[in-house]
Amino acid sequence: MKAWQFTGTNKPLELNEVPEPTAGPGQVVVTVRVAGVCHSDVSALDDEGWMGLFPTLPRTMGHENAGVITEVGEGMDHWKVGDRVGLAPMFSDGDALGYGKWDGGFGPKLLATDDNLVKLPDEVSFELGAMATDAGLTAYHAIMTLGEVKKGTKVGVIGLGGLGYIGARVAVLSGAEVYGADLSLAARELADEIGLAGVGESIEEFADKGLEVVVDYAGFGVTTESGVNALSKFGVFVQVGMGKLEARLDTLQLITKQLTVKGSNSGTKEDLENLYELMRSGDLNPPVNLITHAEIPEAIDRLREGGVVGRLIAVYDEAQ
Amino acid sequence: MKAWQFTGTNKPLELNEVPEPTAGPGQVVVTVRVAGVCHSDVSALDDEGWMGLFPTLPRTMGHENAGVITEVGEGMDHWKVGDRVGLAPMFSDGDALGYGKWDGGFGPKLLATDDNLVKLPDEVSFELGAMATDAGLTAYHAIMTLGEVKKGTKVGVIGLGGLGYIGARVAVLSGAEVYGADLSLAARELADEIGLAGVGESIEEFADKGLEVVVDYAGFGVTTESGVNALSKFGVFVQVGMGKLEARLDTLQLITKQLTVKGSNSGTKEDLENLYELMRSGDLNPPVNLITHAEIPEAIDRLREGGVVGRLIAVYDEAQ
Repeated sequence: MKAWQFTGTNKPLELNEVPEPTAGPGQVVVTVRVAGVCHSDVSALDDEGWMGLFPTLPRTMGHENAGVITEVGEGMDHWKVGDRVGLAPMFSDGDALGYGKWDGGFGPKLLATDDNLVKLPDEVSFELGAMATDAGLTAYHAIMTLGEVKKGTKVGVIGLGGLGYIGARVAVLSGAEVYGADLSLAARELADEIGLAGVGESIEEFADKGLEVVVDYAGFGVTTESGVNALSKFGVFVQVGMGKLEARLDTLQLITKQLTVKGSNSGTKEDLENLYELMRSGDLNPPVNLITHAEIPEAIDRLREGGVVGRLIAVYDEAQ
Repeated sequence: MKAWQFTGTNKPLELNEVPEPTAGPGQVVVTVRVAGVCHSDVSALDDEGWMGLFPTLPRTMGHENAGVITEVGEGMDHWKVGDRVGLAPMFSDGDALGYGKWDGGFGPKLLATDDNLVKLPDEVSFELGAMATDAGLTAYHAIMTLGEVKKGTKVGVIGLGGLGYIGARVAVLSGAEVYGADLSLAARELADEIGLAGVGESIEEFADKGLEVVVDYAGFGVTTESGVNALSKFGVFVQVGMGKLEARLDTLQLITKQLTVKGSNSGTKEDLENLYELMRSGDLNPPVNLITHAEIPEAIDRLREGGVVGRLIAVYDEAQ
């Protein structure tokens, strides 16, 4: 089978002929139906700092996957051929699909274990199922697991692009009162679709709303400051976005408002299960751009250039 | 009776003749035996920004108090004349002793309610009992309530002066493994007295110890950065000190280590009860400087100049 592989920093993805995987004990083979292309793929290709995550090369990339189980290994009888699954990217040993020793979904088949496998409900498409494994999972973990958003919680969401759209929408679907901020007019125009109670250029415009949680999916330093400024007493700020890798922290506000600031990174298999449950309603439909397996390198280039609205999702033939 | 009163920004304390308080419903009269002088008294005297906390003037200052109940008002029969008490400074309406509508301990008698009153164990002196109500409470709340330090927790404490000494010692007495950092050699020399597992100029020297909690009692910006650098994955950083009112936050570390940063401000009556319980052992003895009621203004001047080691505690005559 043919897979797009990472061979080293500053080299393009290579389309290589690789052997088909077979399921060992505790493993299944998943035939990939949909694989998302992520901005961290660009970083891995361009930034030498990521090489530590690739102890052996070449490696088939792709960590946002959904598909169908086509072979079941020893001890995995709780799964069966034909099961629709989404794949949480992280393994319990800290490794991830498309990194380390595990090939990802830029090839037509991959190996997965109980660390990854989550049943994909019939109501949820492969496209949305794959999107949920990374962007969705990360967005959900930050706002629901760390932010502890519940029905009635007053929430601010900074950045209404990919992750922020999902985070804000998940909070709305959970019954929260959600205010959004984005510098882009196009993003602010999504307010009604998301179901926001208010939208503006800065979350500080909603400082009088008694915000209990603010999640920053942008992470440009000034956004961290705005979030802290906008929170009410005992508020929780969650940092997800890494647009800039530092921020000014107003410690007077931190102390006098007794705030909590949390860093959020990816999410768990449980988060993905909860997110799929929420998605069964059909009410979470973030923008996606469908491409083919052959177009993956071009999608990487588009992400590198910037300005892509909506997740880039490679859809594979059922019969591949 | 004579009380040292605040009359306005940039004016010295005035020693005024004031009426003796009598206990209304839900109140008791406490005859003050010991009143601490705090750096925030200096700030209130010198900084116009604090005027909002003094809606009516003059006001008898002093928010670190311990004494003996000498009159019991209606509905307060669970207290009796002669009870030794420490006074948590905050009222449930957000007001505090020595601020707002409540006179503090720079006069010989004051009114208190169940918001403030904590039984002072016989084993704990009035001096330590008073010290505990503010410095002790604040130090305890940060490290034990927000830091959730327990037996075996690996903790870093930044700043081993007033609050830091108490915080570190409380953690040691609770069975934690505590590392300390202070730029001052004199403070580092307290390491054995506190019971530290290690001491250095920067808490980053202990980054290889797997620190789960770091509490910054200094708060000079760079200390916040050091604390974040020193923490291990899922670590908790607690900011108490406000030496400088901003810090650079390394959001890459915040996110990849999935850290939590909390601002800590004062503490609760429950914290004071827990602290008194811990102090019954006699093993928490931070340095104190005893002065008289007449010397309170001079103590304010000493704090204003800086360099005071140990809490300044005014001790009153039993027979006043």
